[in-house]
Amino acid sequence: MRLELDPDRLLPADPDERRIARELHAAVVDAPIVSPHGHVDAAMIAEDAPFEDPADLLIVPDHYVLRLLHAHGVDLADLGRSPSSPADPRQIWRTFAERWHLFAGTPARLWLEDTLASVFGVREHPSAANADELFDTISAWIASPESRPRALFERFRIDVLATTDDPTADLDAHAELRADPTFAGRVLPTFRADRYFAPEAQGFTTALSELSSLTGIDCGSAAGMLRALETRRAHFRQLGATATDTGVVDAASLRMDLSEFERLHRAAVYGEITPTEAARYRAHMVWQSARMSSEDGLVMQLHPGVLRNHHRPTLDRFGPDTGHDLPLPTEFTRPLRDLLEDFGTNGRFRMVLFTVDETSFARDIAPLAGFYPSVYAGAPWWFLDTPAAIRRYREAVTDAAGFFKTSGFIDDTRAFLSIPARHDVSRRIDAGYLASLVVRGQLPEEEAHHIAQDLVSTIPRSVFRLD
Amino acid sequence: MRLELDPDRLLPADPDERRIARELHAAVVDAPIVSPHGHVDAAMIAEDAPFEDPADLLIVPDHYVLRLLHAHGVDLADLGRSPSSPADPRQIWRTFAERWHLFAGTPARLWLEDTLASVFGVREHPSAANADELFDTISAWIASPESRPRALFERFRIDVLATTDDPTADLDAHAELRADPTFAGRVLPTFRADRYFAPEAQGFTTALSELSSLTGIDCGSAAGMLRALETRRAHFRQLGATATDTGVVDAASLRMDLSEFERLHRAAVYGEITPTEAARYRAHMVWQSARMSSEDGLVMQLHPGVLRNHHRPTLDRFGPDTGHDLPLPTEFTRPLRDLLEDFGTNGRFRMVLFTVDETSFARDIAPLAGFYPSVYAGAPWWFLDTPAAIRRYREAVTDAAGFFKTSGFIDDTRAFLSIPARHDVSRRIDAGYLASLVVRGQLPEEEAHHIAQDLVSTIPRSVFRLD
Amino acid sequence: MRLELDPDRLLPADPDERRIARELHAAVVDAPIVSPHGHVDAAMIAEDAPFEDPADLLIVPDHYVLRLLHAHGVDLADLGRSPSSPADPRQIWRTFAERWHLFAGTPARLWLEDTLASVFGVREHPSAANADELFDTISAWIASPESRPRALFERFRIDVLATTDDPTADLDAHAELRADPTFAGRVLPTFRADRYFAPEAQGFTTALSELSSLTGIDCGSAAGMLRALETRRAHFRQLGATATDTGVVDAASLRMDLSEFERLHRAAVYGEITPTEAARYRAHMVWQSARMSSEDGLVMQLHPGVLRNHHRPTLDRFGPDTGHDLPLPTEFTRPLRDLLEDFGTNGRFRMVLFTVDETSFARDIAPLAGFYPSVYAGAPWWFLDTPAAIRRYREAVTDAAGFFKTSGFIDDTRAFLSIPARHDVSRRIDAGYLASLVVRGQLPEEEAHHIAQDLVSTIPRSVFRLD
Repeated sequence: MRLELDPDRLLPADPDERRIARELHAAVVDAPIVSPHGHVDAAMIAEDAPFEDPADLLIVPDHYVLRLLHAHGVDLADLGRSPSSPADPRQIWRTFAERWHLFAGTPARLWLEDTLASVFGVREHPSAANADELFDTISAWIASPESRPRALFERFRIDVLATTDDPTADLDAHAELRADPTFAGRVLPTFRADRYFAPEAQGFTTALSELSSLTGIDCGSAAGMLRALETRRAHFRQLGATATDTGVVDAASLRMDLSEFERLHRAAVYGEITPTEAARYRAHMVWQSARMSSEDGLVMQLHPGVLRNHHRPTLDRFGPDTGHDLPLPTEFTRPLRDLLEDFGTNGRFRMVLFTVDETSFARDIAPLAGFYPSVYAGAPWWFLDTPAAIRRYREAVTDAAGFFKTSGFIDDTRAFLSIPARHDVSRRIDAGYLASLVVRGQLPEEEAHHIAQDLVSTIPRSVFRLD
Repeated sequence: MRLELDPDRLLPADPDERRIARELHAAVVDAPIVSPHGHVDAAMIAEDAPFEDPADLLIVPDHYVLRLLHAHGVDLADLGRSPSSPADPRQIWRTFAERWHLFAGTPARLWLEDTLASVFGVREHPSAANADELFDTISAWIASPESRPRALFERFRIDVLATTDDPTADLDAHAELRADPTFAGRVLPTFRADRYFAPEAQGFTTALSELSSLTGIDCGSAAGMLRALETRRAHFRQLGATATDTGVVDAASLRMDLSEFERLHRAAVYGEITPTEAARYRAHMVWQSARMSSEDGLVMQLHPGVLRNHHRPTLDRFGPDTGHDLPLPTEFTRPLRDLLEDFGTNGRFRMVLFTVDETSFARDIAPLAGFYPSVYAGAPWWFLDTPAAIRRYREAVTDAAGFFKTSGFIDDTRAFLSIPARHDVSRRIDAGYLASLVVRGQLPEEEAHHIAQDLVSTIPRSVFRLD
Repeated sequence: MRLELDPDRLLPADPDERRIARELHAAVVDAPIVSPHGHVDAAMIAEDAPFEDPADLLIVPDHYVLRLLHAHGVDLADLGRSPSSPADPRQIWRTFAERWHLFAGTPARLWLEDTLASVFGVREHPSAANADELFDTISAWIASPESRPRALFERFRIDVLATTDDPTADLDAHAELRADPTFAGRVLPTFRADRYFAPEAQGFTTALSELSSLTGIDCGSAAGMLRALETRRAHFRQLGATATDTGVVDAASLRMDLSEFERLHRAAVYGEITPTEAARYRAHMVWQSARMSSEDGLVMQLHPGVLRNHHRPTLDRFGPDTGHDLPLPTEFTRPLRDLLEDFGTNGRFRMVLFTVDETSFARDIAPLAGFYPSVYAGAPWWFLDTPAAIRRYREAVTDAAGFFKTSGFIDDTRAFLSIPARHDVSRRIDAGYLASLVVRGQLPEEEAHHIAQDLVSTIPRSVFRLD
């Protein structure tokens, strides 16, 4: 089957809408990419080393792809995810290519089609028959200088790329890139202190001692830990960070006396914290994050509502990030009340809310963003970064939040090659949505053009304080 | 930017659907307005006094507008909402006009465009450049006799307008309008006894003593309070009321022995009611409301699921109704079970259910309305009275409830000038939805015409017992 | 009003989408019907007796129709549902025909239009005026040999029809049909052991004693009951069963020691089980069902989230299945964790998840089906088996689960005559969805044709292990 990218892909079917959407999209198709939230490794760009092989490039690290292959009975070990026994890249690729049809209608298919065609010049849909040939084509591309991360960074017109980093990360790669006069892009760290929100977890005390060592501040007390985190936030800011990122199981926030917080911290250090106390600790850490952001101006990203590692046997065999982090029903309005009462109208505080439960777009997030100056409706994320869900997001949030209290697209990816495809999907769907407002007499065409531009430039830059 | 109202605005993009929708809409565009649920002040119409100024007319009382301006950092004091320091109307208007682009895609923008163009004859989108000119244009209009509330009432073809009134309200304006032979419209009170559902609130005992004074019935006992409420309901009915309205945080209903109710009432009077008891009290008051409606035939409107005054500092500075009443996840099926077991098939009882959590349209409300003779699916309300949400409402409720167990549109507004624009939005979206059923072969075109008419006349009149 | 079936009914409005959808639908319009989940009585087919009358054929047993008539004030006694006083079929039919307009826009109307036109050749919409004439037309058809169940089975091209059966059902009709060389179809039993999931219910001990008698295994112990259920599952499998079916109020699953299970079982037998214990018992039975399926390979269907018999007075007067089983908010991810940890990657285990809370499609079901090899996203069911909801289902689940982890359509009906109409609705909506992917450049047209075929044949056959 021939693989051709329809130039009008993802645009509305109606001819009037499509004509306008095509023009709106054409005006932003080449706009630089602002990627304020993602999981690319800064060291990859700093080192500019070649990729390994097609499987490592496109399959193994992409949980969208792994997940669906696993759902069709492929063992994760056969997809290169066993820590002990490596898998043959060519065989992984074959396994994938034979199952290409299973991806019909999914976003992973869209991104891969775009990458295959635009980056490698592939002209056929993968299949059992052409698997080896495609593997060789991609391998040849990997061997070429144009495949190096920095060349791609430029080719993809990436303007800003934010990474995600532990408070104790050394950030050497970020420093190196900043200092490198030959690298014009901006690669920014993002402060992600999730380990310090989970006092019941095994790694908590390790996290504390690492932080103590690095900062020289004793994290045995809660006050010490907070001070140490503040120190690290300052360091992140020096290296260009403009934001933090927090993933928690729910959006609970809690105002708390320092004395209670110290008591809970101590209990955690001694491994004696109860589940209820741990939940209170976590909720207070969400509040503390907001408090710090209100002081240092780092934009607080919050994405609650994911149950991590649903299937323990898979976790035990293959580790985390193996496709069974799953969405939960999520609300924001009640849980965030303490935090927003204290910081919601603070001029320096800013918060971007993400969800994987889309019922909260219209019910919680847009109404919050439509009142609180500090709150922005985060782009559809993870399970929702798909053409259908991005459209539903606009239809859900625009009523209460308009366009200018939304965050701009975030790709949230570790699949470096998929970045342009992902941003393009978002630009196409936004163009289609704007076109439908124009055709329905809700928006002048001229204004739609301004908004299409703002959505890819002014808005993400301003929301994430990138200028 | 020129402001022109597209005559086909909000109709579907598809040419076939649009043609049919245009005809359906044309047949109801001039139909009288039945507004069975809103917040216009009857005294405004009775007194027929001129409006004050453009800001007071269009900005200050409209929480849809305030909310989004506040979300973009405008202090509510600068929008005329400070109880202590008034703001300059012209400056408020400028603040708004400069930020006109922030409303792109929102329903407030649609209503305002319609009002600006249809009522004032404005031909330009507001902007910093033309703010003063528009302010003067609207001010001149306000000075003209055609701007008086009664002239507008007639011009807008308002047939019925229901207000919302406390049980202790004097209803003098309603009585005056009824007695006035020069006023042909119907302005009806609606019985809203929310203060008696909140035994934990500070104002509860005041509410009781006001009710006692007015009725001469001792409300120190629950039985007395119920009798006094019944007395006032009878009075409301004499002045034309056909409905009650109840806003509660959830839809809980509870059957209860009078002895327990008396005990809780006593605890409330003494300020000793616990939160759990207060919730039981409230749930029983919902049940009692239904019981009373089953006796006197007032249509019971219930709209649970709003958390009032989310941001205490804003409440403290600016009072209630300042844009931070926010939606909560809401269910109806389990909470209403006691009430519906007792009154659900009662021939005299009728109940209209509203929600701001649209997940309950298809899951709770339509299935309830699709079985219980007494239950009607209330129109999309508040955060959901938007083109996109009205369409989703029809797509969610029609399957289980059809058209004839829905309530007809309600505007729920205190922004008098927006009433025709709001009803027109609903008529356009309904026309588009019906047209899509016709084009998809689900409904004969002839029948769609009947339904379009019914939706604006027979249905609201019948549901709200207005004939 | 003339009744004509639009050949393009339910296809998209856009001409390009419609053209492609028409071709996709044309290719499957005559495909045999695979119905792996429904409530037709096998004895009806085995006996091949004529239907009784038009009311009994189309109105009385169809809760979609009853429900909406009741919602408009028709007493269920007047619809033939009183156990004590029968109603006149002609009068029931008149009651229905007069209220035909109330069904506008509902799925029941679609199915009935299709049946009236395609099966009886009716050419007018029902009305008060033609009610008697239509009654006579349908009565004449009933009297003809072509109306016999077996003739219809063939005419409808039903290939597989699964029924729903209690573990103690004799399955004689199934055995008879299997043994009958003149009957070419497959009528398969489905094992539905709901009575054994409700230890708090009155009928529980009766259910146990019936099962003991039938199997000769003492069900006084939990171990005995499990063994007896396994015995009956084996018997069902011998008669062709490939699946079980379970309806529970929520999706809770629970791993449990046999000793605790025995203790709860004993408490239930003595009528002393508490509500909390009963919930634990039920959750463990869900787990046990999965355990058994992982051993015998019967596909486990789970459809939680329905509150049965919401209105007790109606239950008391008319019995169950009278239109007031209502949807509840439903989640799957957390509740199914125990079950999926133990059986989710078991190669023999397979589970199809149904919901009537559509928020769980994108949030719970598709992500689960998109990771666990054993989990399939069940077709939209009950309140959601409508054109609008089937479309929303595809838009919600395809992103995470694609097409090949969905179950294929299930009609879930006891209205035998509506089976072809229901399947046709699903085929039309799927054709339209596929067409929209093609027109938007997300799917090659050739591949859409393969998928349209798979959705009605390979997929349901494979998911339900019918080959």
